[in-house]
Amino acid sequence: MIRIGVIGYGYWGPNLVRNFADRPNAQVIVVADLRPERLAEAQRRYPAVRVTVDASDLIADPAVDAVVIATPVALHFDLATAALRAGKHVLVEKPIASTSDEASRLIDEAARRRLVLMVDHTFIYTGAVRKMRELVTTGELGDVYYYDSVRINLGLFQHDVDVLWDLAVHDLSIMDFILPQRPIRVSATGLAHVPGKPENIAYMTMFFDGPMIAHVHASWLAPVKVRRTLLGGSRRMIVFDDLEASEKIRVYDSGISVDPPSPENVYQMHVGYRTGDMWAPKLAVSEALAVEAAHFVECVTDGTRPQSDGEAGLRVVRLLEAASASMQNHGRPVSIHGVAAR
Amino acid sequence: MIRIGVIGYGYWGPNLVRNFADRPNAQVIVVADLRPERLAEAQRRYPAVRVTVDASDLIADPAVDAVVIATPVALHFDLATAALRAGKHVLVEKPIASTSDEASRLIDEAARRRLVLMVDHTFIYTGAVRKMRELVTTGELGDVYYYDSVRINLGLFQHDVDVLWDLAVHDLSIMDFILPQRPIRVSATGLAHVPGKPENIAYMTMFFDGPMIAHVHASWLAPVKVRRTLLGGSRRMIVFDDLEASEKIRVYDSGISVDPPSPENVYQMHVGYRTGDMWAPKLAVSEALAVEAAHFVECVTDGTRPQSDGEAGLRVVRLLEAASASMQNHGRPVSIHGVAAR
Amino acid sequence: MIRIGVIGYGYWGPNLVRNFADRPNAQVIVVADLRPERLAEAQRRYPAVRVTVDASDLIADPAVDAVVIATPVALHFDLATAALRAGKHVLVEKPIASTSDEASRLIDEAARRRLVLMVDHTFIYTGAVRKMRELVTTGELGDVYYYDSVRINLGLFQHDVDVLWDLAVHDLSIMDFILPQRPIRVSATGLAHVPGKPENIAYMTMFFDGPMIAHVHASWLAPVKVRRTLLGGSRRMIVFDDLEASEKIRVYDSGISVDPPSPENVYQMHVGYRTGDMWAPKLAVSEALAVEAAHFVECVTDGTRPQSDGEAGLRVVRLLEAASASMQNHGRPVSIHGVAAR
Amino acid sequence: MIRIGVIGYGYWGPNLVRNFADRPNAQVIVVADLRPERLAEAQRRYPAVRVTVDASDLIADPAVDAVVIATPVALHFDLATAALRAGKHVLVEKPIASTSDEASRLIDEAARRRLVLMVDHTFIYTGAVRKMRELVTTGELGDVYYYDSVRINLGLFQHDVDVLWDLAVHDLSIMDFILPQRPIRVSATGLAHVPGKPENIAYMTMFFDGPMIAHVHASWLAPVKVRRTLLGGSRRMIVFDDLEASEKIRVYDSGISVDPPSPENVYQMHVGYRTGDMWAPKLAVSEALAVEAAHFVECVTDGTRPQSDGEAGLRVVRLLEAASASMQNHGRPVSIHGVAAR
Repeated sequence: MIRIGVIGYGYWGPNLVRNFADRPNAQVIVVADLRPERLAEAQRRYPAVRVTVDASDLIADPAVDAVVIATPVALHFDLATAALRAGKHVLVEKPIASTSDEASRLIDEAARRRLVLMVDHTFIYTGAVRKMRELVTTGELGDVYYYDSVRINLGLFQHDVDVLWDLAVHDLSIMDFILPQRPIRVSATGLAHVPGKPENIAYMTMFFDGPMIAHVHASWLAPVKVRRTLLGGSRRMIVFDDLEASEKIRVYDSGISVDPPSPENVYQMHVGYRTGDMWAPKLAVSEALAVEAAHFVECVTDGTRPQSDGEAGLRVVRLLEAASASMQNHGRPVSIHGVAAR
Repeated sequence: MIRIGVIGYGYWGPNLVRNFADRPNAQVIVVADLRPERLAEAQRRYPAVRVTVDASDLIADPAVDAVVIATPVALHFDLATAALRAGKHVLVEKPIASTSDEASRLIDEAARRRLVLMVDHTFIYTGAVRKMRELVTTGELGDVYYYDSVRINLGLFQHDVDVLWDLAVHDLSIMDFILPQRPIRVSATGLAHVPGKPENIAYMTMFFDGPMIAHVHASWLAPVKVRRTLLGGSRRMIVFDDLEASEKIRVYDSGISVDPPSPENVYQMHVGYRTGDMWAPKLAVSEALAVEAAHFVECVTDGTRPQSDGEAGLRVVRLLEAASASMQNHGRPVSIHGVAAR
Repeated sequence: MIRIGVIGYGYWGPNLVRNFADRPNAQVIVVADLRPERLAEAQRRYPAVRVTVDASDLIADPAVDAVVIATPVALHFDLATAALRAGKHVLVEKPIASTSDEASRLIDEAARRRLVLMVDHTFIYTGAVRKMRELVTTGELGDVYYYDSVRINLGLFQHDVDVLWDLAVHDLSIMDFILPQRPIRVSATGLAHVPGKPENIAYMTMFFDGPMIAHVHASWLAPVKVRRTLLGGSRRMIVFDDLEASEKIRVYDSGISVDPPSPENVYQMHVGYRTGDMWAPKLAVSEALAVEAAHFVECVTDGTRPQSDGEAGLRVVRLLEAASASMQNHGRPVSIHGVAAR
Repeated sequence: MIRIGVIGYGYWGPNLVRNFADRPNAQVIVVADLRPERLAEAQRRYPAVRVTVDASDLIADPAVDAVVIATPVALHFDLATAALRAGKHVLVEKPIASTSDEASRLIDEAARRRLVLMVDHTFIYTGAVRKMRELVTTGELGDVYYYDSVRINLGLFQHDVDVLWDLAVHDLSIMDFILPQRPIRVSATGLAHVPGKPENIAYMTMFFDGPMIAHVHASWLAPVKVRRTLLGGSRRMIVFDDLEASEKIRVYDSGISVDPPSPENVYQMHVGYRTGDMWAPKLAVSEALAVEAAHFVECVTDGTRPQSDGEAGLRVVRLLEAASASMQNHGRPVSIHGVAAR
């Protein structure tokens, strides 16, 4: 039985508590939050859980085996560091930290103490993303040509991070999980419509070493909610629409083939088009967070390396840093350093 | 009665011929194309029309009042120049020319001879785009915050121009028509998946002097066809989906309002969200090309300045040039010079 | 403070308990269910609530002011009768009873004892249905021409009632709430694909005294889930799609106008068509059951007549009885007797 | 070379002329219509075609091999009879005639003279309907459980036939083509909102000898256009949406399985649900009328029996007659006599 303390009971915290509470081999024993009314709410739903306004108290609790951190990102590093130093395994909300330097130091701290450090890249635990990864790794898609994602809606404007850190982070974690390569260069553009605040609309292009490209459009200022990703391969192409009740993944047997030029047609390039069946595979319907919670508990118990480990968290933060830097310069490209070959 | 010669009877030419043939005060009297089988097709449908493989012959024809050019873009400048020098009014397919220098020279040539020079920016003659312009100019939308467009499908790969010149050109002409300001800086990224060929997937951001941003995603390599534009304002926001049979324009009474901070909520920015009714105005259903053909005939007859004149064509080409230059440099921003204040 | 006992903690019961628990002036004090594991679940979520396998015990409890019945329909009559006789106010799941005779006797029992008898016609407490009613009663729609509803999905096959009693009941309650007239005749058809079981696919037409018609298609055997209602009026027409995340109600400014014949057109009837704007009004977003729970508590407290009273429940059951009778005879029409003029 | 005369150049006639004109082995040599302006239009588009206001003249023309009839249905019988008696092969617009008696007499007339009699059941020549038939006949769908179709839009109100004869006729021809059985009983309901005019909204149920049911909802008074058919089988289920640009046919690997009762669950019937992949097969994209025209020419040339022969036309008219009769009696069921076993 893994005993868990959860820091932060705002928007996402209750989901984490609920999913860990539903694990047979885990138990949430303490919840911390600065806001008494949030603690009262936690207490009302989980009478057996201890609550506290003091995160240090939770971290120091010898009964706690693992700490789950669901606070604003600015607090991730300090809380995670304290938890690791107290010998606790750590699951931290995405993005793992505010800077790649912080992320690296967390990785080192966890490695030194042989503790689990996992980042809550929720999407990689969904049936849809796992199916996409399967289609890539089995070669069904062929060579990957592009990843294109639109993640927009109205609100909530964050005060501490720009829209890429809030929304594009999901795509970066998905790409990190499913793509055969990692970005080597980033160009991002964006705008803050509220003066003095972070960018609320942003576009981010990622370049790779080879004929692959990725792009994310993130916005807090769209009249409609869109969550749609295109994943194009040389053999097949996928549309992933996360707002579809069923059929979130559609696989198109479509693509191009390059032909030698023909004398009859000098006005069009000699690229052939192939369109075929469309196929919507049935997906696992488990709640992603339930799969993720089970995985974290398993990692803690068995010493398995998390699928979303600290390194994955670091790679995502490096891309976000590069994007924010590029965005300050109207799209000037920024190279990604320290990218390990996959 | 305006007598018209049409050069190029490939994909778009037949639509131009049909629409001018339907005008009561215009007459297509000659069609030129290099391909005899295309001329045979034109002859079959319009037995009274003269056909020729020689565009110079058409241009030299003293019976011709106006020349319509629907050839590959590389030929626009030479043909339009010849036609203007022969004293003919000219309507040229978009984009107006291959370079801004060529476009400027066409403008000068037409001005010197007091001839009509119009570019076929078809979209600005649609009911949908005219409604969008109306909503902007009457202040219904409030301040314009952004223009975001996705224009993707499978094929046809062009051999002479990249996907921005083929598809984004539509958005640039729409923006030129409806936005209160003009872009001052461009950052574009893209990729050619077929070696040695133009970019087939591209992303283009445009910056303005003020809190407005524009972006176009264009692709010939998408499994699904999308033609969707978001136009966000401070009071209302529009979704323009050109593939909708009806209800192409949806106006959302949604937006944000900026509030002073409150002590209770320190984790969220103090931006309020407003969502209200949605409204799909009935649109004029005339074929855009019919409206455009009538407008061209009227300009020739009355000496009116075309809504899509040579200057509009030039502004669009300048943006495309800047985008292509930026795309060669992975998104490095490129300034737009010679932008007249609006 | 109204103290409530809830009988039945299966699929719907937990929603009722949750919504009454959230009322400031109500309190769920006891829950009954025959299944111990369901009671354990209730206990786990609501530690302060008493649980019992014996509904009589709940009904006899002097601390209980009102009884909420969420059991299979076969039990409604006996449980509601017992509760009324014990002096409790009653809210009963839809349909109110298995027969119109039972429904009438419940109405009499409640009237004699001056107790509230309310049926859980949930839909009439939704923002969407209330907006539809408003558009009808204010005359926005003009004369109502038709109500047409499709309510289909895969599963759950019921063992005790046919698909009309399970699904069409929602439409009958909506129609009872929003239409200016009541059906005078019913024709229904259907089929049971599983031998010896109730019909799992059914079609039900309702006739009125005047040029209005209504139809419901209900099925447990459809590959896709559909919840779509058309409400046609002489001035406007509504599409109500309950699966839309937003924009559940769309109002079309469309219709017909009848013209005198013209000599030019002898092949077409002289009916004109009018199409105009579409409009999706913003709807109240409160959970229907919360509105309904508040309404029940208010009725108990103030003696107000429920909007979904026993009479409404009876009218719906009469239609279901007629439909089932018609369905046994392949659509032979069945008259509705005892329809009070509205 | 088959020489064709076309009677009726209104809404559908031009499509027939165009498609026969495009056949290499057919030629439209004469067009008849009562309206001079329609003939002028035909002449304008097809200068080589002879036009006449006198259908008898066309029928008597010895150069004509086959007559295509695209007039109001009231004229079908007289014109087709005259054409057959003049020794011409006949293709007649749907429905084949106004009564089953007329249809039978046309069949006899054609048989006696060994002439081709074909009815324009256009839908059976579409890629979508052919794919549905293939899925039924190969057993992919399993036993067919139901056919359910919604065919609604705003306008055009017909003055001579009710909405079933105008719209449901398409479904009856599709069912005749793809279903393994034929209806034995019909119940229909409907309403005429314009006094003295045919029903403009109608519902039609068809019963079979076995656990299969069919239903069509047809309307000229809907705010939205819907063309959607569900075809349910024991193994798979199909959604056919004719308004989808691509993916008109979606095949769902979903269904039910009937299990023996289990002691744990006495409230739900023991029917299991199976949901699996969805699949949208690529469809032939040929225009249906082109396939149909080629088929008619082939039947005339080779003496092949048409897929939509007079018998198919007769079966469809029998169902329409029964439906109209049932509709006059508020859904009273009407048996179909003379149904040949398939």
